[in-house]
Amino acid sequence: MKLTPRQQVIVNLVRDGQPITSEALAAKVGVTRAALRPDLAILTMLGILDARPKVGYIYVEKPSESLVKQYISNIKVGEIMSKPVFISEEVTVYDAIVLIFLNDVGTMFVVDSDQCLIGAVSRKDFLKIAIGGTDIHKVPVGVIMTRMPNIIWAESEESAFSAAKKIITHEIDCIPVVERVASTMEKEQLRIVGKISKTNITKLFLKLADNNI
Amino acid sequence: MKLTPRQQVIVNLVRDGQPITSEALAAKVGVTRAALRPDLAILTMLGILDARPKVGYIYVEKPSESLVKQYISNIKVGEIMSKPVFISEEVTVYDAIVLIFLNDVGTMFVVDSDQCLIGAVSRKDFLKIAIGGTDIHKVPVGVIMTRMPNIIWAESEESAFSAAKKIITHEIDCIPVVERVASTMEKEQLRIVGKISKTNITKLFLKLADNNI
Repeated sequence: MKLTPRQQVIVNLVRDGQPITSEALAAKVGVTRAALRPDLAILTMLGILDARPKVGYIYVEKPSESLVKQYISNIKVGEIMSKPVFISEEVTVYDAIVLIFLNDVGTMFVVDSDQCLIGAVSRKDFLKIAIGGTDIHKVPVGVIMTRMPNIIWAESEESAFSAAKKIITHEIDCIPVVERVASTMEKEQLRIVGKISKTNITKLFLKLADNNI
Repeated sequence: MKLTPRQQVIVNLVRDGQPITSEALAAKVGVTRAALRPDLAILTMLGILDARPKVGYIYVEKPSESLVKQYISNIKVGEIMSKPVFISEEVTVYDAIVLIFLNDVGTMFVVDSDQCLIGAVSRKDFLKIAIGGTDIHKVPVGVIMTRMPNIIWAESEESAFSAAKKIITHEIDCIPVVERVASTMEKEQLRIVGKISKTNITKLFLKLADNNI
């Protein structure tokens, strides 16, 4: 949103002479108070100026930009998630490393025979085991994966903001996007419908700036 | 930026009855055209309504939100970069892997004796060599690193948007932030002053939404 030349003049006048009343502003700009009202309304709503009753207009150093927040909060995980790569826990670490290269991903999700989430493995886990002297042709992924319930996940209806917060708070590159399926016994069953990573958030950031949403 | 109840009413009226003139809107809202002018000015500037001469107001499905773009374009790499980890190219791959775990980073930068950038190595490079049957206690990092001039970098005065674009376009997790130092011979010398990764961009995204900038 670009300010008009007159709005820019108003902002400069307020910054240099605050607090300033709308009468004083109108006199300096050379128009009536009524003519100035739409501009003052816009600048106040944008958070650039603050209208203080009986004092006048004040320049706000850091506008609250709550438009940005509203905009961002409305974007859902389901709109920006990617396709996940699954493996079963019996796959050997060596074969899993081959799969992580073939798919060019940083994290793979481990599922049971019902396609429900039981674990996750990342390049970091693989690198740790690969230099440890273990025979990676024999050890199955199930031994080295991070296992449920220690996996952070998101749901597709959740905001991208909330998912990004989980990623940063827990220092994870990529989290699964799941939907709850009927729980059997006491265990919660989660089916993977996608994944969301720092890559998705970085792409979203670019889209925001590029106006492509 | 929150719309006032009256602005919301106007938006709904336009969406349901577009194109609609300001006279017709004023009559429906029950106020004068003059009273409606500030609201129409705000909604038009926000890109929510479009004023077409001799036609009336039209509802815009996707506001251009150029405020978001302006805001984002002003954030510089130098404001959000992190501290990089350096190594020299003689370090063995094994020792470098130990360092990548100790520092808990995904990428390390390789520098010469003048602290200038000569290469970069990531977890992915290490994982590839670790499963390849090579003796990682003997091979130096210099053999497996990505070498200049094949490294994408950013400068601290560049916009975060531009750096994020490089990261996504070239599919890299992390790029060095450099400053040019006096070139010796025909080689351009770059000194590393920071690094910028998808983590920095994801954190920036959270800050944008949290209004913490």
